[in-house]
Amino acid sequence: MADFVEIKSPADFHVHLRQGELSKVVTPHVRKGGFDLAYVMPNLKPPITTTDQALAYKKTLESIDGGVEYLMTLYLSPDLTPAEITKAKKNGIVGVKSYPRGVTTNSEGGIESYEAYYPVFEQMEKEGMVLNLHGEVPSDAANNTCVLNAEATFLPHLFKLHARFPKLRIVLEHATTRAAVDAVKSCGDTVACTITAHHLAITVDDWAGQSFNFCKPVAKYPDDRQALRQVILEGHPRFFLGSDSAPHPAHTKSTATPTDPCAAGVYTSPILLALVAHLLESFGALHRLQDFVSGFGRRFYDRPARHGVSPIVLKRVKGVKIESKWPLGDDDSVIPFWAGRELGWEIEA
Amino acid sequence: MADFVEIKSPADFHVHLRQGELSKVVTPHVRKGGFDLAYVMPNLKPPITTTDQALAYKKTLESIDGGVEYLMTLYLSPDLTPAEITKAKKNGIVGVKSYPRGVTTNSEGGIESYEAYYPVFEQMEKEGMVLNLHGEVPSDAANNTCVLNAEATFLPHLFKLHARFPKLRIVLEHATTRAAVDAVKSCGDTVACTITAHHLAITVDDWAGQSFNFCKPVAKYPDDRQALRQVILEGHPRFFLGSDSAPHPAHTKSTATPTDPCAAGVYTSPILLALVAHLLESFGALHRLQDFVSGFGRRFYDRPARHGVSPIVLKRVKGVKIESKWPLGDDDSVIPFWAGRELGWEIEA
Repeated sequence: MADFVEIKSPADFHVHLRQGELSKVVTPHVRKGGFDLAYVMPNLKPPITTTDQALAYKKTLESIDGGVEYLMTLYLSPDLTPAEITKAKKNGIVGVKSYPRGVTTNSEGGIESYEAYYPVFEQMEKEGMVLNLHGEVPSDAANNTCVLNAEATFLPHLFKLHARFPKLRIVLEHATTRAAVDAVKSCGDTVACTITAHHLAITVDDWAGQSFNFCKPVAKYPDDRQALRQVILEGHPRFFLGSDSAPHPAHTKSTATPTDPCAAGVYTSPILLALVAHLLESFGALHRLQDFVSGFGRRFYDRPARHGVSPIVLKRVKGVKIESKWPLGDDDSVIPFWAGRELGWEIEA
Repeated sequence: MADFVEIKSPADFHVHLRQGELSKVVTPHVRKGGFDLAYVMPNLKPPITTTDQALAYKKTLESIDGGVEYLMTLYLSPDLTPAEITKAKKNGIVGVKSYPRGVTTNSEGGIESYEAYYPVFEQMEKEGMVLNLHGEVPSDAANNTCVLNAEATFLPHLFKLHARFPKLRIVLEHATTRAAVDAVKSCGDTVACTITAHHLAITVDDWAGQSFNFCKPVAKYPDDRQALRQVILEGHPRFFLGSDSAPHPAHTKSTATPTDPCAAGVYTSPILLALVAHLLESFGALHRLQDFVSGFGRRFYDRPARHGVSPIVLKRVKGVKIESKWPLGDDDSVIPFWAGRELGWEIEA
């Protein structure tokens, strides 16, 4: 058992950096968590639907922490035109994120049907932009659709888009099921898949009655978690880390009243690299850490690690606990995943 | 559409009346909710494992509200002997409740294997006592068992017990799945099944991120809820109400911290008859109300309605909301299911 692990240029290919005060707290946590690339989600209020918005947002993030490479995305909506895709590409925007309507945080403007966006996808394919899919259908009791099968029920959309746009790079985000893993594997090299840290740790039992483990997609069965672990263990190059680190003010995560559900999201940024090392080691995949947190994602996105950057050194530790909370303003906080629990690794200062 | 419905002697064949201060608050809610029979669960601290304990508990409940018929149960544990079964029967104890270890509130002393209890079951069969099964197996990630399939995975135990003790009356409590409904249907007339009010209302989507809807067994898929509704609609005589009304102090239901999960349980007692009427009407089964909340259960348990008791009159209402909470001591409360929502029926005073 090694006591030190060196990781070159960790890249988080799915992260929520929010806006306002919350953004000032969580954006520096990308580097604190060990990462120097953040693929930034566009589901702000209002959503990032234009190149100009994305560039302004990027500037804001750079003003908070200039030491991270921010890859920007647009929110798929009727505002998005093929001409805007061309403009976005010219300005360094990397991808477009699709949210089915109403399934997660700030997705009220999400899409209901993909056909209307075919001209946009065609232009994206031509320009080499990436389509990032939140792969869930909305719940519909009449069709027995709920949070448990929302992802599996979405997969035919993935197949249809891939068949229609075989050269379009598509990422199925935050896969949580064996069905999704098998689906992505069965696609061609233009289809990849992100896996979060927390979905390697938890199952439905962990968010049953515990809102701080509640996120979308929800964690599923133990066998689904096993499929996520297995595909990392086998080193499949189209499966890589996207943390979906999604901070919320703590008061919106607790369920102190019986009215609305709490906000969906698990916050892993400040502990991300150590957490992933801890988890991969727990199922014998520590030797895949470099590929999973950097190599595979960087290759798919064609974003090689920068030269001359020192690797991040993780050292084995005992008795080191995850912070219980990060202050947010005077009377709120952001609570990280596994708050107060021990991790087996930490970044050497 | 009738504006009044009369129901004779509603009987709740599964309710938690707790102990101490909480019991003083919730026990009177049996009658307030429209019921004059309560089949009382034994999972206190310590559990009710002897006839003497059960009789003392019954006296306590009667001192709180003497207007309800309390049917008492014992907690299946190694303390329970065939001799104790005989004594229990002589003293009017009706059933024995089995909890798999660790699956719900105060089940740490639950059973792990049934074979050891065969002599007890044999005596119960002889004496005509009822075996009440909490039909879930404990979670076990290595076998892909979790809260979602814990009930379906339990069903072979039901079949085995029924085959070994065909004359023993068995109730599969609080069924939540189509698999459980089908299983009970396939058994002989000695096997019945309770259904709660809340499982007729909610699915997994309702407790995802909302701890006040979290209970064990957890609500499952929409199709499972449909199976529960359907078996009531068809008037199957071995399926009847057991509310599993399970009050907890509100502070133990909210998830204000990221450590332990909240308490499992949904509290329906104070609104029970109106709630069940509301729900049955929502799927066209209001005409089954009398059988579901009284006739079928009373027949299975051989507890005919008392003569000369006035029926409960439900009247159709608009704009009447469920109480948001019931005070518990100086600084806590008990929060009912659907707090603050409107019901279409209420009991006429």
